[in-house]
Amino acid sequence: MLRTHTCGELTKTQLNQEVTLCGWVQKIRNKGFIVWIDLRDRFGITQLVFDEQRTSKEVFQKSLGLGREYVIQIKGKVLERESKNSNLLTGEIEIMVEKLDVISKSETPPFTIETETDGGEELRMKYRYLDIRRDPIRENLIFRHKVTLEIRNFLSNANFIDVETPCLIKSTPEGARDFVVPSRINPGQFYALPQSPQTFKQLLIIGGIDRYFQIVKCFRDEDLRADRQPEFTQIDCEMAFITQDDILIQFEEMIKHLLKKIKGIEINSFPRLTYSESMSRFGSDKPDIRFGMELTYLDDVLKNKGFDVFDKSESIIGISIPEASSYTRKEIDSLIEWVKKPQIGSKGLIWIKYLSDGSFKSSIDKFFTDDDFKKTVEKTKSKAGDLILIMAGAKKSIQSQMGMLRLEMGERLGLRNPKLYAPLWIIDFPLLQWNEDDKRYYAMHHPFTSPKTEDIDLLDTDPSSVRANAHDLILNGNEIGGGSIRIHDSKLQKKLFSLLGFSEKKYIEQFGFLIDAFKYGAPPHGGIAIGLDRLVAILGGSETIRDFIAFPKNNSARDVMIDAPSKLETDQLKELNLKSLNK
Amino acid sequence: MLRTHTCGELTKTQLNQEVTLCGWVQKIRNKGFIVWIDLRDRFGITQLVFDEQRTSKEVFQKSLGLGREYVIQIKGKVLERESKNSNLLTGEIEIMVEKLDVISKSETPPFTIETETDGGEELRMKYRYLDIRRDPIRENLIFRHKVTLEIRNFLSNANFIDVETPCLIKSTPEGARDFVVPSRINPGQFYALPQSPQTFKQLLIIGGIDRYFQIVKCFRDEDLRADRQPEFTQIDCEMAFITQDDILIQFEEMIKHLLKKIKGIEINSFPRLTYSESMSRFGSDKPDIRFGMELTYLDDVLKNKGFDVFDKSESIIGISIPEASSYTRKEIDSLIEWVKKPQIGSKGLIWIKYLSDGSFKSSIDKFFTDDDFKKTVEKTKSKAGDLILIMAGAKKSIQSQMGMLRLEMGERLGLRNPKLYAPLWIIDFPLLQWNEDDKRYYAMHHPFTSPKTEDIDLLDTDPSSVRANAHDLILNGNEIGGGSIRIHDSKLQKKLFSLLGFSEKKYIEQFGFLIDAFKYGAPPHGGIAIGLDRLVAILGGSETIRDFIAFPKNNSARDVMIDAPSKLETDQLKELNLKSLNK
Repeated sequence: MLRTHTCGELTKTQLNQEVTLCGWVQKIRNKGFIVWIDLRDRFGITQLVFDEQRTSKEVFQKSLGLGREYVIQIKGKVLERESKNSNLLTGEIEIMVEKLDVISKSETPPFTIETETDGGEELRMKYRYLDIRRDPIRENLIFRHKVTLEIRNFLSNANFIDVETPCLIKSTPEGARDFVVPSRINPGQFYALPQSPQTFKQLLIIGGIDRYFQIVKCFRDEDLRADRQPEFTQIDCEMAFITQDDILIQFEEMIKHLLKKIKGIEINSFPRLTYSESMSRFGSDKPDIRFGMELTYLDDVLKNKGFDVFDKSESIIGISIPEASSYTRKEIDSLIEWVKKPQIGSKGLIWIKYLSDGSFKSSIDKFFTDDDFKKTVEKTKSKAGDLILIMAGAKKSIQSQMGMLRLEMGERLGLRNPKLYAPLWIIDFPLLQWNEDDKRYYAMHHPFTSPKTEDIDLLDTDPSSVRANAHDLILNGNEIGGGSIRIHDSKLQKKLFSLLGFSEKKYIEQFGFLIDAFKYGAPPHGGIAIGLDRLVAILGGSETIRDFIAFPKNNSARDVMIDAPSKLETDQLKELNLKSLNK
Repeated sequence: MLRTHTCGELTKTQLNQEVTLCGWVQKIRNKGFIVWIDLRDRFGITQLVFDEQRTSKEVFQKSLGLGREYVIQIKGKVLERESKNSNLLTGEIEIMVEKLDVISKSETPPFTIETETDGGEELRMKYRYLDIRRDPIRENLIFRHKVTLEIRNFLSNANFIDVETPCLIKSTPEGARDFVVPSRINPGQFYALPQSPQTFKQLLIIGGIDRYFQIVKCFRDEDLRADRQPEFTQIDCEMAFITQDDILIQFEEMIKHLLKKIKGIEINSFPRLTYSESMSRFGSDKPDIRFGMELTYLDDVLKNKGFDVFDKSESIIGISIPEASSYTRKEIDSLIEWVKKPQIGSKGLIWIKYLSDGSFKSSIDKFFTDDDFKKTVEKTKSKAGDLILIMAGAKKSIQSQMGMLRLEMGERLGLRNPKLYAPLWIIDFPLLQWNEDDKRYYAMHHPFTSPKTEDIDLLDTDPSSVRANAHDLILNGNEIGGGSIRIHDSKLQKKLFSLLGFSEKKYIEQFGFLIDAFKYGAPPHGGIAIGLDRLVAILGGSETIRDFIAFPKNNSARDVMIDAPSKLETDQLKELNLKSLNK
């Protein structure tokens, strides 16, 4: 060891001991006759003193040559500080340095290595190894380590077995795009990187593993949205001989355990909402239930009063914004602009101010009476001082638009408190979604999801009304996990593939091994996959997953630090029997 | 839950309880009026009884239709067995079945699902999900889980932080061949899959993480030898502010901890051999030290006695095979054939039988006296009854040939006891190896390995004599891990790249980010990477890693179960801007 202690452990207990420390120079305060240096490592900061009177001339001189981020080794004596710093673990002591060795010099870093930095995103990513030296990023990585290990031990104690599944698998063009890997030994053929170990975990269950988990890298070649990564980490789990209820209970326990162990927060049982209830109340299948502002259906109150926009709409939905009746015309106009953005896609917004004196002011004064407004207020449970925002149109569209507006207002009013944790389950998703462009059904989760037993007959008559035995785990408005009871019967699985437009030749070619496996005694099974990156970020009080990934890629799927991807050498391509069409 | 208990937990404690079990039909014994069924799940086997007298007619009839590997759910009462089976956890009881449901039928499996199976390797791989149902494979996977979790907790307690490094990185044609991944978003560019997270772990250390570990998939596109996998799992570790000694102590502790915790075996401190001592004594840099039979240098005894073969050789090396003087001519001839195989490459073998009566018989009787043989016996520490095998030739060649012969004889004589664990360290490897074909040096470990400080000057004058601060961890004749102290100085790193034939343009292009990182205060650091697959296999008493991997690939790097790799759809290739030259 090049040190006797870390920079985070010395206290008065070690007074007068000779110690050796290593670390980075964080800060230098030079008073001329005395130099203080903050020495930093992962464990903390220790104050060093070089004193013209008490330090040897040679060492004192040397200290004057130090700069920020120099790596040094020092030997010295632990002394009690005159002015203690109770914010530091080592704040009671300082080291009177007797010996100083510079291990590595440092050029001036491209940004300041402090909690608050002057480095922009791009620069921080290019020098990520310096960014990691900053307290918040380092603490995020340590936090991720702790959460992950806690999950592993929890699942292991619950009899789950960690099994590694392969990374070089087979491409299945259903779902998102695969990353592929050319095989040199099998020319003209490719592996794919897994989007999830779905079929493998099912095979492990068929193989009798009973309870499986894995914390595993998965890959998706998508056009990147903000805060998505081409490679991401999944807590992947599967259980045999269970019902959906067992899965929900098991993973509810896990999240509760994490919240208690890591955050000291106790949570009661998670609400369970059906997909249709969630859409209806929150306009979203991943509702943030830390605040109310639920969607209210105003058709019976506001329809057929002569206001054309309402009368011709399928549905009228309002939400009540607490204490917002004082919004100015300008503020309301900016909200109207906001809902008209293409990402929201609303045609507009109607507003009713329920003023604190009990009177009303509204953009539709002409068409409605105070009595209509009173009924609206009753229905939306508004209080004097609230602002009611209303949309009218096709029900599904305005549900989701109102859902987005609700979230935005929650954000603006500071109701999305990152210190609160509000998990819930969404269940009873539709099994299939009709796509008007392709004129075919797509699986809402994936093709292995089991329909609800009572809905199986509807597969023949009304596929879009079939509900799936699927469940999403939602935390603070984020989908952090999803899963289902799986099909374990080859006939039903074949039927699903057919409904999804697979020819028999195709599904046998791609999933024949799974259909075969069902022939040799498949147990009922199901599971869940939870996004580790996002779970950790939310538990860590952030919604930016990049801050919890050591070496993330940017929005063009590039690693700007190592500069990947990059061109190959000609020989490499040749060996792979490939020709690049970009030259 | 579809069950109240697993098949491995019922004992007399639950007598007369009503229970529900699920599992696979392992075995059926039908005595006409009574049917016994062994019901199996991951946790054990429970005996079910269907009795013409006591079981309802309907259920009894149903039981007659069951077959092997059917998945069933039963309800029944726990009864005490008449003839107990003390080999089974549940051997005291049986279940009188009252209700029987067939969950999934099974076709006859392609091989028997028993500890000893009639299925060949290829068939077992194609139906790996059935192979996993067999006790030994399932137990191997559970064993792997336990070892892995133990490692994680051990390292975490030793202050190592588990940090995930990226899987989509940059191709660096030095070393083994990379698997590459075409980027669709960056046309004409490729990612590579990591052969190890080497540079990333160094950057984490430079980033102040201090102690890093990761259990991580790595990839190598090699022409596969038996028992190598294109994807494999590595316990990857790195430490800051340490010397080589600290690394050896830390990971010695880890292996000792595993042996004690998992196998109940206590081991003293590991021997440390230098590379040259190991080559000299065992003819190998991964010696199996569970048995003796060390190489003996016989030059001073047997040279210059008029036997041309010896006189003209650089070196004469013998090993003494205990109690093998009774080997027949035929047996010895077959040994001679064995050493002449191209994989060994020896020209032949000379033998001296030291018979139990103290007399000698030898293939070189004519040239040597009994006195010469007596000296040979003394030198090789042979006992009457032993057989001395001798090779002569170029020293390095016959060292390694004798090393292979030693291992083979250890194997044949049953001296490689899988219940014994003999770990050791090999240190002081050469830093560089000269390749006569390319007329250039290659790094014996990798280009980031630090030379020993006292040898640095030799880099300019005699590079091949420079020793590295490298260490290999050997267990029972297998290299299970390797590592080193790394270079942390950009000048030295550049020098190494130059010695390895990199142009400045090239090393900056490929490793510029690491050389840059050294400029901002790099701590001394080093680490190790241990092959998890092999470590687990050896701890599990096997040397076949495939038995400890859930879904291994075969020697052509194929997954025969899912049939990967495979051809892509034309659209997929087109999107990637690639053209396959095989059509």
